[in-house]
Amino acid sequence: MPATDPAIAEVSCLRYGEHEETARELAVDASLDVLEEAGLEGDELDSLFVANAFGMADKQGHVGPLISTAIGAPNVPSSTTEAACASASVAFRHAIAHVRAGMAETALVVGTEKVSHIDTMTATSYFCYGSDYFLEGGVGATFPGLYAAIARAHMDEFGTSEEDMARVAVKNHANGIHNPTAHFQKEIEIGDVLDSYEVAAPLKLYDACPFSDGAAAAIVTTEEKARAMTDTPVTVEASTQRGTIAALSEREDVTEIEGTQLAGQAAFEQAGVSADEVDLFEVHDCFTIAELVAMEDLGLAEPGKAAAMVREGQTKPDGDVPVNASGGLKSKGHPVGATGMGQIYEAVEQLRGEAEGPRQVDGAERVLTHNVGATGGTVTVNILGRGD
Amino acid sequence: MPATDPAIAEVSCLRYGEHEETARELAVDASLDVLEEAGLEGDELDSLFVANAFGMADKQGHVGPLISTAIGAPNVPSSTTEAACASASVAFRHAIAHVRAGMAETALVVGTEKVSHIDTMTATSYFCYGSDYFLEGGVGATFPGLYAAIARAHMDEFGTSEEDMARVAVKNHANGIHNPTAHFQKEIEIGDVLDSYEVAAPLKLYDACPFSDGAAAAIVTTEEKARAMTDTPVTVEASTQRGTIAALSEREDVTEIEGTQLAGQAAFEQAGVSADEVDLFEVHDCFTIAELVAMEDLGLAEPGKAAAMVREGQTKPDGDVPVNASGGLKSKGHPVGATGMGQIYEAVEQLRGEAEGPRQVDGAERVLTHNVGATGGTVTVNILGRGD
Repeated sequence: MPATDPAIAEVSCLRYGEHEETARELAVDASLDVLEEAGLEGDELDSLFVANAFGMADKQGHVGPLISTAIGAPNVPSSTTEAACASASVAFRHAIAHVRAGMAETALVVGTEKVSHIDTMTATSYFCYGSDYFLEGGVGATFPGLYAAIARAHMDEFGTSEEDMARVAVKNHANGIHNPTAHFQKEIEIGDVLDSYEVAAPLKLYDACPFSDGAAAAIVTTEEKARAMTDTPVTVEASTQRGTIAALSEREDVTEIEGTQLAGQAAFEQAGVSADEVDLFEVHDCFTIAELVAMEDLGLAEPGKAAAMVREGQTKPDGDVPVNASGGLKSKGHPVGATGMGQIYEAVEQLRGEAEGPRQVDGAERVLTHNVGATGGTVTVNILGRGD
Repeated sequence: MPATDPAIAEVSCLRYGEHEETARELAVDASLDVLEEAGLEGDELDSLFVANAFGMADKQGHVGPLISTAIGAPNVPSSTTEAACASASVAFRHAIAHVRAGMAETALVVGTEKVSHIDTMTATSYFCYGSDYFLEGGVGATFPGLYAAIARAHMDEFGTSEEDMARVAVKNHANGIHNPTAHFQKEIEIGDVLDSYEVAAPLKLYDACPFSDGAAAAIVTTEEKARAMTDTPVTVEASTQRGTIAALSEREDVTEIEGTQLAGQAAFEQAGVSADEVDLFEVHDCFTIAELVAMEDLGLAEPGKAAAMVREGQTKPDGDVPVNASGGLKSKGHPVGATGMGQIYEAVEQLRGEAEGPRQVDGAERVLTHNVGATGGTVTVNILGRGD
């Protein structure tokens, strides 16, 4: 493995939920945490990669220099990446590229978001800016509405039921109980989901992830440097990204997301492994239906067959194909610009055997993360492995 | 030179000014132009790097997939980079990193911005979001105000006069006349600048660049591939980025921008050349004072001595140290998310000897571009050379 192959030395994650701090302050907190974990000072960094989606809509863009200044690294190059809900994993890929290219040796990636200070309608609007605003957001299609269209198509095509979707929420909430960074640590039952109010039929409140504040960070560096910082570095076996035709209405089939299929295939090829050799899948379940579609697009189930796997308990942490042991976006939460880094945080915790209680997947040696921007315009897949 | 060393195969630039189209449509137009120049179809791209600053504030974020879909490349990875007024050159660096890392072979970089549909106060507010909103924008410091503070300090320290600054505007307008992509093609005199109304004393309207719409793009690829696309590829001899403490009030000295000094030194070192060996400097003159400060920070003049060089005509296209032959931000215009790519467009035109009329620097073999985010929180420097 060449010296410039990237590895993750350390990670940090603030608890998702409601925070008093602004997005930039949350990013600073997560950044200081990960620097401390890695035993680094700010001025030992070569580059800072920030992910944030809503800052510019909320009056604070150009956060890179604000964060770098606050962590004692005002002269490092910084940038903000936006790719809707996939912002953080795309920023992570930029960091990987800079390390591989020899343009940065030690990079800090931090994803951050803050929405709890704005009302729900404003937050919903901000999300809409991630859709095709001509064809979708601007004419009234909210994200619950867009994913409801996906759910309806999936139900029509494969007979997927509202109970099938509800079971995803129940499983993810059961996992979230054991995750100290999770927004919700609350067990729920199928009836709670089915009885919750409809956000966009057939999706109900408990089919949806919450609006969360949060931040998560990682030190990405060369494998050699990572080994000097920790006994348990995490290697990047694959990191891929693909897109899908932006607006749902322009796609031939909305029961699948092509970007996930392509990024998944490319990732398995890059890592030289099959899905069977992955111990945990952290997938983008912004709505319950999204977890089922992701499983099918990643090849964990034939089209229309993911629901049966959930029903049979196969996707629990102790099942054959664990999915979202963290609780997923549904229970862990979804601070948009931080979510992709939060998935990477979970992967590292799992690979180190440090996930709490029954959430830990026994002997996890390889974890896949899957992060989606909007309805799949952007999709990233990472396969991370134990580097010790 | 290894095969993965990046080069610029082709560039495009829409005329800066007022456009009917939205930011995404401008980006599509510039992208289709550069694809045509390079003889490429969208699906021959491996990656798309978009730069845009104000889209999310203006209800359309996540533009990567919208642009990739419109240019026939819906499955390519895309991302949006924001670093205030340096967004485009930072996106360009991400493209370089991906090509160098072998993560993309043929990348399209496009910067885009649209402001003419909003009123001046709203546009001024959007710019403020690029400052430290706690310490600056949110408490009333607009960008003219921040650069006025820099101007005042420079006048106090070095005796720089309002006439000195006005001469920068006059020179840049004289260059812009010959630039078909320039927002302003209008000769002005010193009196026009001095008599224009004060935006933020001592800066007057004609000390400031305009709000412009625009888009500019480039195909960044391996040197080998670039040679297959054109007889006149442009090589990237250096590409550096550094930052400065974000808020002006927290800096020791505001007559200089540390990020420019550091990025400039690093770029000369990377390219293995001195400033004497550069034939043209395209620097970030968002206000006239910024051009003088940039010249001093890049080492073209001792501190306080840049004004004399302008007075003596040394910075004209036929002078010893040509600066902003394009007309600079002052006359060419400043479509924020596009500006850095517009500088690269000018560099390529100049290196190919294709700049119109007296704007062409005779026999230009090496051009430096300098792009600043806000008041220097982000600074990039590129040194581009003839690759034929």
